[in-house]
Amino acid sequence: MSEVNYKNLDKTAAYTKLKKTAKPSLKKLINAKRISTCTINAGGGLTYNYSAKAVTDEIIDQLGILALEQQLIQKYMSILSGERMNTGEDRMVLHQLTRGQTISAVTEKGRDIGEFYREQQKRIANFADGVHSEQIKGSTGKPFDTVVQIGIGGSDLGPRALYLALEGWAEVNGKSKMDALFISNVDPDDATSVTASIDPETTLFILVSKSGTTQETLTNQAFVLDIINKTGPKGLIPSKHMIAVTSQTSPLSSSAEFLDCFYIDDNIGGRYSSTSAVGGAVLSLAFGPDVFKAFLAGAHEADVCALEADIRGNASMMDAMLGVYERNILGYRSTAVLPYSQALSRFPAHLQQLDMESNGKSVNREGEPVEYSTGPVIFGEPGTNGQHSFYQLLHQGTDIVPLQFIGFKNSQRGYDLDIDGSTSQQKLNANLAAQITAFALGQNDENPNRQFSGERPSSLIIGQDLNPEALGALLAHFENKVMFQGLIWNINSFDQEGVQLGKVLAKKLLGGDGSIPVLEAYFNLLN
Amino acid sequence: MSEVNYKNLDKTAAYTKLKKTAKPSLKKLINAKRISTCTINAGGGLTYNYSAKAVTDEIIDQLGILALEQQLIQKYMSILSGERMNTGEDRMVLHQLTRGQTISAVTEKGRDIGEFYREQQKRIANFADGVHSEQIKGSTGKPFDTVVQIGIGGSDLGPRALYLALEGWAEVNGKSKMDALFISNVDPDDATSVTASIDPETTLFILVSKSGTTQETLTNQAFVLDIINKTGPKGLIPSKHMIAVTSQTSPLSSSAEFLDCFYIDDNIGGRYSSTSAVGGAVLSLAFGPDVFKAFLAGAHEADVCALEADIRGNASMMDAMLGVYERNILGYRSTAVLPYSQALSRFPAHLQQLDMESNGKSVNREGEPVEYSTGPVIFGEPGTNGQHSFYQLLHQGTDIVPLQFIGFKNSQRGYDLDIDGSTSQQKLNANLAAQITAFALGQNDENPNRQFSGERPSSLIIGQDLNPEALGALLAHFENKVMFQGLIWNINSFDQEGVQLGKVLAKKLLGGDGSIPVLEAYFNLLN
Repeated sequence: MSEVNYKNLDKTAAYTKLKKTAKPSLKKLINAKRISTCTINAGGGLTYNYSAKAVTDEIIDQLGILALEQQLIQKYMSILSGERMNTGEDRMVLHQLTRGQTISAVTEKGRDIGEFYREQQKRIANFADGVHSEQIKGSTGKPFDTVVQIGIGGSDLGPRALYLALEGWAEVNGKSKMDALFISNVDPDDATSVTASIDPETTLFILVSKSGTTQETLTNQAFVLDIINKTGPKGLIPSKHMIAVTSQTSPLSSSAEFLDCFYIDDNIGGRYSSTSAVGGAVLSLAFGPDVFKAFLAGAHEADVCALEADIRGNASMMDAMLGVYERNILGYRSTAVLPYSQALSRFPAHLQQLDMESNGKSVNREGEPVEYSTGPVIFGEPGTNGQHSFYQLLHQGTDIVPLQFIGFKNSQRGYDLDIDGSTSQQKLNANLAAQITAFALGQNDENPNRQFSGERPSSLIIGQDLNPEALGALLAHFENKVMFQGLIWNINSFDQEGVQLGKVLAKKLLGGDGSIPVLEAYFNLLN
Repeated sequence: MSEVNYKNLDKTAAYTKLKKTAKPSLKKLINAKRISTCTINAGGGLTYNYSAKAVTDEIIDQLGILALEQQLIQKYMSILSGERMNTGEDRMVLHQLTRGQTISAVTEKGRDIGEFYREQQKRIANFADGVHSEQIKGSTGKPFDTVVQIGIGGSDLGPRALYLALEGWAEVNGKSKMDALFISNVDPDDATSVTASIDPETTLFILVSKSGTTQETLTNQAFVLDIINKTGPKGLIPSKHMIAVTSQTSPLSSSAEFLDCFYIDDNIGGRYSSTSAVGGAVLSLAFGPDVFKAFLAGAHEADVCALEADIRGNASMMDAMLGVYERNILGYRSTAVLPYSQALSRFPAHLQQLDMESNGKSVNREGEPVEYSTGPVIFGEPGTNGQHSFYQLLHQGTDIVPLQFIGFKNSQRGYDLDIDGSTSQQKLNANLAAQITAFALGQNDENPNRQFSGERPSSLIIGQDLNPEALGALLAHFENKVMFQGLIWNINSFDQEGVQLGKVLAKKLLGGDGSIPVLEAYFNLLN
């Protein structure tokens, strides 16, 4: 293997050539044969279809050359091998290791980190089994039937989206063990409304903060404990109703306030932590450890798929490179994520964090400003709902927005009805097929209001069923896409220094430091 | 009043001048005095603050001249007077009339349309009172305690966002009359999961479709009726558990399948229908007719505010013009809506439809292509949640995204706790003030990863409490902003031809029409 070296996108030979390639017409490219051949296995039973992207074989070849020149696979292997690829924070990047060891063991100070992750997963599984078998009960003797996760950002969006994604599947497959609720916002209305809907005697709280210092989460912990103390029955011991997920070095880790404590480490970024104890605790409690294990297996399968060197055989790399082409050559600024599955209602919100927090950067991994666009704006809602909302702009607006469709052959809950000659699931997927086609081909009409220019590119991820394996692969697909794009842009996708300044200023205000008049003036407006 | 005439933005003298104005530094402009003076009454107890916008007095003057040249107030008055401003569909645009008559009565074929809207509101109020007083009960004799709205797009997003926005307020103010749930997606999992959580005997369904032909909504009606028939007790009569909101000309309007029917008309667009019977039925049932009335009063107050000719005294016009400046002069492509209130969790999703479906157009009102950018991409999540998600890109990404903050002095549910010297509400608002400041001023740091360039513009809408009046004004503020922007761009903000092609193609597929091979091929992938 050649030496790994890092350079900015605009210093690569392939990018210069790519800029010179002719921009083809999607309408002319697309046909039934292309639809059946432009498809890649994405793991977990998913396939990635890129037939509705406006790229010729020549452009794909050139994107493959760029991927080679930027040494994507070698750098991915560096990540898997435990190199300190989070350069800004001088940390390893090991979320892939939480779902399986791919190359070799990763050790730090003599400790096998994969073993550490597996051990935590096993501890969580035992704990969840104990709760489900009622060996572990609430302090007043009642079994736990509800779990409430207190966390924000990566400790909320991913786990919440995944819980919602599997809730229906679990119900019809006999895997519903506990209801899960989430408290995230420091707005007191959030904790007040969630706690009003639960019974403290039968509720287990999960406090999730890697650092153990997150303002919102610690505030909500105190808030919830106060409410339990005030409203719970005599004899209820709050510490017997709360577990923690944190790092071993955090102030929470040795606290007597918790029934138990499960660990992550600094090599897992918040937005990448759904496959660690951060997602593991709540998902194992809600659905059972075997469901979480199947979810990890799907993610691991996608991670292995991402090792393929040929761009035409690597779904997340292809997705990443097409996104780079659209962002840097075609100049598109945002991407819509459009799952045709109500169960994925909050999945776009998770991807919004994953992508925008990872690649919304202006300096390269050495801290030098980059001269090209990096991460786009990500947004989305489930179809068909979105069709009756923002699709107008997607079809006829003045900017082109690339689209990422997701669809499944079967509905999740299985119950369906033939109405007017088709089931609801058939109607759902007919709409999905219709949208891809309409965006690509458009339509001429004498009425200019009904003119559709088409030429609007999309991709489609398809699965048989939205089950734990497919969900794991779906998550990992996007994580790996974001990783590859960050490597192309030569940025560090694994820190988030951009969130710090606001935190510092909020602390100043609350600490009574009046040294910034503008800050004071805004706060005064709100008091 | 001079004659009203319509011209494209790039044909105005003011736009040409605007392009030549110097682009100021926000860091240099902003100070405590500006923060206290750049503020406009927005109705309903709200104020709009634009101190963190990168505009000089000269630019605002020029934006005011552009507003004059495009005759915004005259055209708004044309709308209020019932001119057929929805040119594409040859319809009037009368959503403002649903909350109050501002200039004069609007008649069509001899009928006073305002009177018609008031009559429907009164009929809904009487019906809701009948349900609440248990004079109207379910067919098995039990009182109704739950309402389920079946609708999609404008019949879903607005009413749902507004219900969630007032749920907490209603609880603490003794106005919670019924729980509300929503079914929108044609995905069978949506209707299956909602119906699994309700008791058919005590549930009242509201079927909402203006045309009475919306595929998703009619499918879900049949779906729900089937489930009720299968799972409800003997003796339950489904038609006694469903009301309709539709137009008088729709196939639903005279159906015996409904307990009662309330009407809208073609002069109300779906995304503007929250203040009509579409929002009125569900909100009056959930919270009582007086709450809906107060909500309308707040919206009407904002509509009256929007008549002010001076841009510096007209909040929605200022908001609109600053958006045009950022879109067409500075070239920004998207806008984030960031409410610091958990109750507004789905309000950004409603604004996404409102804005993108209204102004995502490429032809002017005469059907000629425009040569400038129109509506931006709209996205958002509540703060502080968003801070731990996509704010990284907003602070340090390569594109600038203008921000619309919304904040309230008080929390909605009132329950709060002092933790470490501040309440949760103070922490929430300290974060809001900190973010505006951080985006505007940025921060120099020797570590380039921690460098914040600042110069990222935002506006702030502030209210005392998120109550019905404030919510009404908030909704109308954005509706009027979108209207003014559409008038500046000389487009028709009131049709949505861009959603038609997909519907037509989906019907072709379901009808077995195999004439488009690409369409067939995509559908086959999903079967």
